[in-house]
Amino acid sequence: MKIAIYGYGNLGRGVECAVQYHHDTELVGVFTRRDPATVKTVSGAPVYHIDKIHEFKDEIDVLILCGGSATDLPEMTPALARDFNVVDSFDTHAKIPEHFAKVDKAAKENCHTALISAGWDPGLFSILRTYSSAVLPNGKDYTFWGRGVSQGHSDAIRRIDGVLDARQYTVPVESAIDAVRNGECPEFTAREKHKRECYVVAAEGADKARIEWEIKTMPNYFADYDTTVTFVSAEELRADHKGLPHGGHVIRNGNTGFEGENTHTIEFSLRLDSNPEFTSSVLVAYARAINRMHKRGDYGCKTVLDVAPADLSLMSGDELRKHLL
Amino acid sequence: MKIAIYGYGNLGRGVECAVQYHHDTELVGVFTRRDPATVKTVSGAPVYHIDKIHEFKDEIDVLILCGGSATDLPEMTPALARDFNVVDSFDTHAKIPEHFAKVDKAAKENCHTALISAGWDPGLFSILRTYSSAVLPNGKDYTFWGRGVSQGHSDAIRRIDGVLDARQYTVPVESAIDAVRNGECPEFTAREKHKRECYVVAAEGADKARIEWEIKTMPNYFADYDTTVTFVSAEELRADHKGLPHGGHVIRNGNTGFEGENTHTIEFSLRLDSNPEFTSSVLVAYARAINRMHKRGDYGCKTVLDVAPADLSLMSGDELRKHLL
Repeated sequence: MKIAIYGYGNLGRGVECAVQYHHDTELVGVFTRRDPATVKTVSGAPVYHIDKIHEFKDEIDVLILCGGSATDLPEMTPALARDFNVVDSFDTHAKIPEHFAKVDKAAKENCHTALISAGWDPGLFSILRTYSSAVLPNGKDYTFWGRGVSQGHSDAIRRIDGVLDARQYTVPVESAIDAVRNGECPEFTAREKHKRECYVVAAEGADKARIEWEIKTMPNYFADYDTTVTFVSAEELRADHKGLPHGGHVIRNGNTGFEGENTHTIEFSLRLDSNPEFTSSVLVAYARAINRMHKRGDYGCKTVLDVAPADLSLMSGDELRKHLL
Repeated sequence: MKIAIYGYGNLGRGVECAVQYHHDTELVGVFTRRDPATVKTVSGAPVYHIDKIHEFKDEIDVLILCGGSATDLPEMTPALARDFNVVDSFDTHAKIPEHFAKVDKAAKENCHTALISAGWDPGLFSILRTYSSAVLPNGKDYTFWGRGVSQGHSDAIRRIDGVLDARQYTVPVESAIDAVRNGECPEFTAREKHKRECYVVAAEGADKARIEWEIKTMPNYFADYDTTVTFVSAEELRADHKGLPHGGHVIRNGNTGFEGENTHTIEFSLRLDSNPEFTSSVLVAYARAINRMHKRGDYGCKTVLDVAPADLSLMSGDELRKHLL
């Protein structure tokens, strides 16, 4: 399978790195908005300007789109689905139906196959919510995120006057997870499910009390959570908070029995050292599936919920039935 | 969706019970080898002799086969796949390829759709092994079973001279689970992964020391495990060990990064109050998928690895993208 990377940030580098572990993939190149002469890939893969992408129409099986969900992907995915099979990691949950419709139209009109919103949430977590609600319809599920770095929340802190840099960790409340694991089905407020830990580098002479107050009272981002703010030096931030770990849990409790007397708990957990590298590895697995579905003539836009597990695997059907089933 | 139950033991009763929670299903009836006059269903569903099954060819969308893997299903599933869409829970891992080939032939020749080996292992655990190895190819996975009742091991004890009844619990070794959860990839012996707890009712005057020795030295079943044997009265067994709980964990550790420097852990866990009721609920969800695949003209034998998550769900594609993705 010949893939190419469109956009070379954390996610693009993650895909570049994943290629060495997914043995059926070959990286045709990296496409960037920057001047290719200024971009050096880690693996030595060739770099091209995005203007050249259409010259590679017949050389790429699947194009992996590594742009951001806010402004890049809503334009990029439908446009590129006209000429390529594409996979993206669009993660603005509320706008997925609209994004899906646009990509579906572009892909179907041009006999391509596209997959949107791959990754782990949306992605593997969505898959687990679907399986667990299908097998235990009489139940309730919970998603907990973290402990992990939220880029959006870190960025929100960075926009405060007097802040030089920041890292925000989303942390699930352990007692809430334990209650759900014990088969209980409570209604939680936002505050009862997650807390927020902020590590902040302030400019010299900045009013730290004011910065802390601005963070803790910020609507949507922090006001509804128990938030701790710790001021650190730029060196400490670099040394202790340089990674992008993440993870979380999807847990569903459901009942069966003629009187609903039996309780079952399904739990799926991720603990990721590097959120972008794990997400990238998921993107490559879905590129494999999309390539196969395209070859079968299955065109249009898909999500992870439309892809059978076998299509992601390097093993054949025979091997899967023999070794993994 | 009109379903029928073929075989009315623990699993068949579980399917009967699951129908009330899967709102798109209607139970046409229960088919049994016994004299129907002697069988009363819990829900009041009609009971028919298996000889009558072919009179219902046009009234059943999916027939759920609730026979045993040892002798029933190897004959039953290929035979019934000629006239019905069928789902079974065949769980003899080593014989799955052979069973698949027979059922596939029968289903394809008659334009039916069949799904074998649904449940949780094989079943949901197989799905998780497939997803996690596809997204983390550079890794290793582990399956732990329990704490739960193993029917096969309980039966093996019951065959010992002087034993009136028995319950065997398979119990995962917590320290082994913890090591894997910590990202380690050890090689375990059978003894290091699981232990076996046996509760045994001995006949009056039976030689308990001899029974305990026969259990602990039984090849394949117990000799390779740390096994405890506790003698209890028939009343104690009924009171304290009447349920059929089970569960377990599939855990995969895998590495990414240009030097393999980042570790990720994927864990899937089940804790089930009733193994047969949970398995039955999985069978009904796969009956839904098979019915949809059959309507699309997708004939032949499938396994859980060939079914997309969306096909299991009561929600439409639009609803899934809006609410679960």
